[in-house]
Amino acid sequence: MDVVLVGFGTVGQGVAESIYLKNNLFQEGFGDDLRVVAAFDSKTYVIDKKGLDPIDLVKAKTNKGVIGQRRKEDIKDMLPEIEYDVLVEMTPTNIVDARPGLDHFRAALSAGKDIVTSNKGPLALKFRELSRLAQKNRCMMRFEASVGGATPVINLASELLKCERISSIRGIMNGTCNFILSRMESEGLPWEPALREAQQMGFAETDPSYDIDGIDSACKVAILANAIMNKDVTVHDVERTGIRGINLDAVNLAAQEKKVVRLIGEITEKGVEVAPRLIPRGHPLSISGTLNTFHIQTDLAGEITVAGRGAGRYETASAVMSDLWALMRARKGSAHRH
Amino acid sequence: MDVVLVGFGTVGQGVAESIYLKNNLFQEGFGDDLRVVAAFDSKTYVIDKKGLDPIDLVKAKTNKGVIGQRRKEDIKDMLPEIEYDVLVEMTPTNIVDARPGLDHFRAALSAGKDIVTSNKGPLALKFRELSRLAQKNRCMMRFEASVGGATPVINLASELLKCERISSIRGIMNGTCNFILSRMESEGLPWEPALREAQQMGFAETDPSYDIDGIDSACKVAILANAIMNKDVTVHDVERTGIRGINLDAVNLAAQEKKVVRLIGEITEKGVEVAPRLIPRGHPLSISGTLNTFHIQTDLAGEITVAGRGAGRYETASAVMSDLWALMRARKGSAHRH
Repeated sequence: MDVVLVGFGTVGQGVAESIYLKNNLFQEGFGDDLRVVAAFDSKTYVIDKKGLDPIDLVKAKTNKGVIGQRRKEDIKDMLPEIEYDVLVEMTPTNIVDARPGLDHFRAALSAGKDIVTSNKGPLALKFRELSRLAQKNRCMMRFEASVGGATPVINLASELLKCERISSIRGIMNGTCNFILSRMESEGLPWEPALREAQQMGFAETDPSYDIDGIDSACKVAILANAIMNKDVTVHDVERTGIRGINLDAVNLAAQEKKVVRLIGEITEKGVEVAPRLIPRGHPLSISGTLNTFHIQTDLAGEITVAGRGAGRYETASAVMSDLWALMRARKGSAHRH
Repeated sequence: MDVVLVGFGTVGQGVAESIYLKNNLFQEGFGDDLRVVAAFDSKTYVIDKKGLDPIDLVKAKTNKGVIGQRRKEDIKDMLPEIEYDVLVEMTPTNIVDARPGLDHFRAALSAGKDIVTSNKGPLALKFRELSRLAQKNRCMMRFEASVGGATPVINLASELLKCERISSIRGIMNGTCNFILSRMESEGLPWEPALREAQQMGFAETDPSYDIDGIDSACKVAILANAIMNKDVTVHDVERTGIRGINLDAVNLAAQEKKVVRLIGEITEKGVEVAPRLIPRGHPLSISGTLNTFHIQTDLAGEITVAGRGAGRYETASAVMSDLWALMRARKGSAHRH
């Protein structure tokens, strides 16, 4: 299966390394493996239809800062010239206009190529347009890595809960906020030092607004609402309150009642929202630290929770690999059929 | 797809009702549905190759205590006379000799029939024999309901983590023990009143040994070890310490260190064990109440946790339904191929 890697930051490099590490499993399972026929970082590219060594790409990026020769055109204009099966789209999330990811999605889907992505922007802003385009061109769009990093919430809900009616999903969808709230609670730290600690540890950006104002969580809420609960929403439809207003008194008051404060994203029959909530200690949504957690309410099973690491080089790559596996299985299945 | 229901207690009735409730989803998804061609409770049976109304079976059981006419032969001797595709085995777990379930498994697998089951006994005692028999006869054995009730731990690990190397699974595998430990901690209840409360609420049996001595957890450890981590063990190989020895002082001491006591089943590279462990508050294994929780350690994803209701009529039925869905999908896939 021929793949094009677009985006070669932390996630892209993690995926390249994971392809190297796990290609033998694909070979064993399907008699075929993943061949990287092109790769793009923000400024350069390399194309080889015989296949690139993914470890050479990572080495080049580490040693030289680039993976190939300088681009003169946009990636979206180069994609139609390449022969491939799957676009692996890992450029950074942009929730203003979803670019350049959105252009890459459109180029791939219009050409009937499958997509695996970690990029929230196009999905949080243009989900319906992109699913219609995928459906029209009979291709698949898989995006486990875009929500909850390694946490297999989308594939769990859409593949393992086929007989369930899902009535709500609530979750801790941002590890940075959860780290800050956990530290306030366990160490009695006020808000600002907890945030600074998160920044020093590399969990939070210098401009932390995207995390702490709930924008990142709202993107994930929008994606889950569309993908699992068949709603038609964008990130702008998500009611949103972040954790800026939470002071230590509120956290301590909650602790006296054996509760914790958590920033919860929720999709219910009433709507889509991100807001701080009081959660009883010992509840699946009371989890501490940087994990992401999703609590799914269904008619037969009652409640199912899945938690995992929301970010990280190999963690996010693991979700991309799992989607590539599913695509390969679907291709081999349909190849056998004809 | 023609199914035979064997065992018509709480789980069997829940499955019959769920088939009634969800058959339209099978029809929509596959253009085929589930037809119950025979059903057995402990003493009676009913067979109709045109299909039985699952709700009539539940009504008969509720009103008359039986579902059909009295059996004169063993179920294992009657199964070969029935035309069917899938045996749904829901007789009670017996960890002495796994009977009568084991006989039903052998009868079905030898005849090339697929199995879906909630019965831990045959799997905890004879996993390798049964998998070999299944493989030899090219049939499938699915048992999501046997571990963790509604919690999709087996299907998550074996279908969604295909690219991961799983190095350990640790879990809260018994809801009764977790309820008792949670009540000791939250209400300051000593051991005996907490157990009596669990018995009054119907979570614990009059003879609570199966739960509190860790036997139930050990069965689940054995099944997961075989099914997911490719070990070759039975319940007798699981080192086992229950929660009888836990006193309130230990629970309070743990609380002072912001920890909780949990009965943890674990499968690691070192071995298989059930024992009480100290877990930090806020850790995914610190969950309170009757939920079951499984914490899976892998190479790329790092750690993934899945939690859900470990028991209950519809909860256990939900896992059976999910396995029936997977079997139908596999059949329709292979039907398309030929």
